Amino acid sequence: MTSADEMYDELLRLSAKAAVLGSCGSVLGWDRETYMPPAGAEHRSEQLSLLAGMVHEQTTSARLGELLEALSETEFDGDAAAVRRANVREMRRAWQRAVRLPGRLVSELAKVTALAQQHWAEARGRGDYSIFQPWLEQIVSLKREEAAAVGIPAGGEPYDALLDEYEPGATSATIADVFRGLREQIVPLLQAIRESGRKAPAEILHRHYSIDAQQKLARQVAARIGFDFEAGRLDTTTHPFCSGTGPGDCRLTTRYDEQFFSTSFFGTLHEAGHGMYEQGLPAAAFGTPAGTATSLGIHESQSRLWENLVGRSLPFWEGFLPHVQQIFPGVLDDVDVAHFYSAVNSVEPSFIRVEADEVTYNLHIMLRFDLERALISGDLSTADLPAAWDDRFDHDFGMRPLSAADGCLQDIHWSAGLFGYFPTYALGNMYASQLFDAARQQLTDLDDQIRRGEFQQLLQWLRSQIHQHGQVHSAAELIQMASGQPLSDRPLVQHLEQRFRPLYGI
Amino acid sequence: MTSADEMYDELLRLSAKAAVLGSCGSVLGWDRETYMPPAGAEHRSEQLSLLAGMVHEQTTSARLGELLEALSETEFDGDAAAVRRANVREMRRAWQRAVRLPGRLVSELAKVTALAQQHWAEARGRGDYSIFQPWLEQIVSLKREEAAAVGIPAGGEPYDALLDEYEPGATSATIADVFRGLREQIVPLLQAIRESGRKAPAEILHRHYSIDAQQKLARQVAARIGFDFEAGRLDTTTHPFCSGTGPGDCRLTTRYDEQFFSTSFFGTLHEAGHGMYEQGLPAAAFGTPAGTATSLGIHESQSRLWENLVGRSLPFWEGFLPHVQQIFPGVLDDVDVAHFYSAVNSVEPSFIRVEADEVTYNLHIMLRFDLERALISGDLSTADLPAAWDDRFDHDFGMRPLSAADGCLQDIHWSAGLFGYFPTYALGNMYASQLFDAARQQLTDLDDQIRRGEFQQLLQWLRSQIHQHGQVHSAAELIQMASGQPLSDRPLVQHLEQRFRPLYGI
Repeated sequence: MTSADEMYDELLRLSAKAAVLGSCGSVLGWDRETYMPPAGAEHRSEQLSLLAGMVHEQTTSARLGELLEALSETEFDGDAAAVRRANVREMRRAWQRAVRLPGRLVSELAKVTALAQQHWAEARGRGDYSIFQPWLEQIVSLKREEAAAVGIPAGGEPYDALLDEYEPGATSATIADVFRGLREQIVPLLQAIRESGRKAPAEILHRHYSIDAQQKLARQVAARIGFDFEAGRLDTTTHPFCSGTGPGDCRLTTRYDEQFFSTSFFGTLHEAGHGMYEQGLPAAAFGTPAGTATSLGIHESQSRLWENLVGRSLPFWEGFLPHVQQIFPGVLDDVDVAHFYSAVNSVEPSFIRVEADEVTYNLHIMLRFDLERALISGDLSTADLPAAWDDRFDHDFGMRPLSAADGCLQDIHWSAGLFGYFPTYALGNMYASQLFDAARQQLTDLDDQIRRGEFQQLLQWLRSQIHQHGQVHSAAELIQMASGQPLSDRPLVQHLEQRFRPLYGI
Repeated sequence: MTSADEMYDELLRLSAKAAVLGSCGSVLGWDRETYMPPAGAEHRSEQLSLLAGMVHEQTTSARLGELLEALSETEFDGDAAAVRRANVREMRRAWQRAVRLPGRLVSELAKVTALAQQHWAEARGRGDYSIFQPWLEQIVSLKREEAAAVGIPAGGEPYDALLDEYEPGATSATIADVFRGLREQIVPLLQAIRESGRKAPAEILHRHYSIDAQQKLARQVAARIGFDFEAGRLDTTTHPFCSGTGPGDCRLTTRYDEQFFSTSFFGTLHEAGHGMYEQGLPAAAFGTPAGTATSLGIHESQSRLWENLVGRSLPFWEGFLPHVQQIFPGVLDDVDVAHFYSAVNSVEPSFIRVEADEVTYNLHIMLRFDLERALISGDLSTADLPAAWDDRFDHDFGMRPLSAADGCLQDIHWSAGLFGYFPTYALGNMYASQLFDAARQQLTDLDDQIRRGEFQQLLQWLRSQIHQHGQVHSAAELIQMASGQPLSDRPLVQHLEQRFRPLYGI
């Protein structure tokens, strides 16, 4: 008879092996976006698909299922009991989800989304939704099948089963609830800002910022807030991302626009926020849930916290502007901190989500959440999507997209089969504000620290409240533990009110 | 009953899968030397060791053995019969070699060499052989065990079994024979050069060469001779290498010394020569012997041909010097082609193999070949190695190493368990001269083409004679087919005589 300890050890070995193999794929994925020569693309697809297949085989193996079944009844005790319970719980959840998906569905989704992404790119390029619609139709149907296979929670809806992959424990109903509250307060705020007639001096950010200096600054600011370059990198790609490939190796990317300060600066703060979460996960727990980020929403909270709550705050710029003025000689000599602060917080409705400001960003997300939920439930047909998008956009932003490229074709997510992913962006914003409020209360002079360019205490606080726990606690539990409250729209709304009312004199 | 065609297809699938997995390791290995952050080293070792273990499992699987056994009796016919026969033959050879090695020996060799390389680095740093000797002792003993396990050919010696991994078909006796002939002619040539009293104006190469311009030049010259940057890269590493990671993706590295022109220039030509062989292998045959380089000696012949026979030739510099003068403004204004040609062909006995000129280089190799053969046969003890090295060096070069760091500790090979590897470097030089002679006869105005900076015909000739064949033909067969002669020392000796006698007025 095998003891529970022996089974648990075997479980960790199997899990670590799959994770190490998966991490090889992360390096190859990063390399594809950064340094791979163009002609290597076809072979790289073969490499990535082989690795993904092998990881899938390992994470759905019968032996893993046996171990998880047996261990799910085990009463662990001792110091590490909580971690062991969480590892078994989360691995079992992932295993069950994975084995419920028929192999045929997995490979069909992989095939259809690979082709759909090409057709989406073409459709977006031409602003012609009809090119993409048949592919979206197929994807929606496959995702419904996926939801049914994975299992719809009692009293829930198919969309919940998809959401669960990215934000475990969250449901459509609770998200819809928080979003409704948030929306009711953001819409009037945006209205007031637009009616204020005031414009932020955003042109300051569109002067000539040399790429060399931007690159230097991006590295400096990432290192300053605490990203560890001994255990990480910063490279250039068309689409910025953060890729944690295992202990001691986390890679950020950004892009540079010589005529726009914000792209690389705030982009780097954002990715470094993701990166510091990865760097703060317990290295010894690599390959287990205890060493893995708990949800996409929490991941996004870390990037948004550094990008927006720190990086666009007045104390930050009171401390940091002189350095930026120095690094771009002559470019910002006529600019004072009030102007700069106002410029980086310009609110301006625009069609494109990834260019949106803090106020409108969440409206972009809610629109997507409502529409994708309706697509999955069947309340909205793919044929009616463009009109539904444009009507809703007009209602929320007071303008209609000129083309589907600025509307429902702008994001890659749906073509990649990512339904249930969008809401994690807005959840991230809410988590970020709630965490930052808690940090502010617990670290009494946080604003002064930020003004002095000292970020260690804040990072340390995030490490202890969030990073070190991996998946031992869910997003909801972490938020409750860190702030003493369940998730609420209030901190985000308060933050937006306090930042933007004074800026727009309303 | 499975048909031969079905079995052959299954064989190719298994082989391709292992090769794709192995190629993931190549990317990770390249990344480790180029862009991996320092703290990622430990996790990278785990990734590489997992992949290596999985590849080993796949390439020694019982199913592979069954297929190879069954197919080894098959009479293939049709157009592709030669390729099929070669694939079965070479895969069977590799499979038999691999399964004969006990798992215990493989992992012990991996463990001991990993530690030995650390101790070697320390020993070399301190110039203290006693730190390394116990490790070398263990490695020699394990390599003897490996030779016995793999099987010593009838009438051969243990060293043959090791050599066979790098230069299939070659034996110690035949190599010793060619080396003896070569040596008898090089020693007097070197003697005459030293007695000529003439010195090449090598200081020209030690002026200030800006790294930026060197980098530009390295890319230019690699592209010019035919390395395809759409399917490859050039990066910077401490130890230069070429890594082919699959069709469409071959990566070179070099290093730059601001005070020495040759390091990056000839280093890049060398690695690009390796790279063009990889780029010339038939992509569709990736993962099979027909898509794999035939031997290390032939690989080295490609690098040496471009580095020395093209890159240090008078026609090359007659065409290329003006461009180099232009790219380093003011640095070479006082230098004419005769001086530059003489400088890049300076012959000067020195302790270090990797810095050696064309004449002395092969003597460095012969010394290592004789000593490592004696270590494996037991004629030389590891305790006696330093003295044996120094005596032989004194005899061949007329000087004694000041420390073991300049003597028997200089190369990493033995600490990594690479016995039988060194002779492929000198074989490469011989193959290169024999191939270049044949190319010159078949492409009548090759010197003029080189003077005009046109290298397509030469590359095309190498593609058709060498690259496209993969392992369908052995090194010996390729040399015979391309030159109409078996391997001979004559082309290399003639090349050295014709290049260096006029330069040194002898």
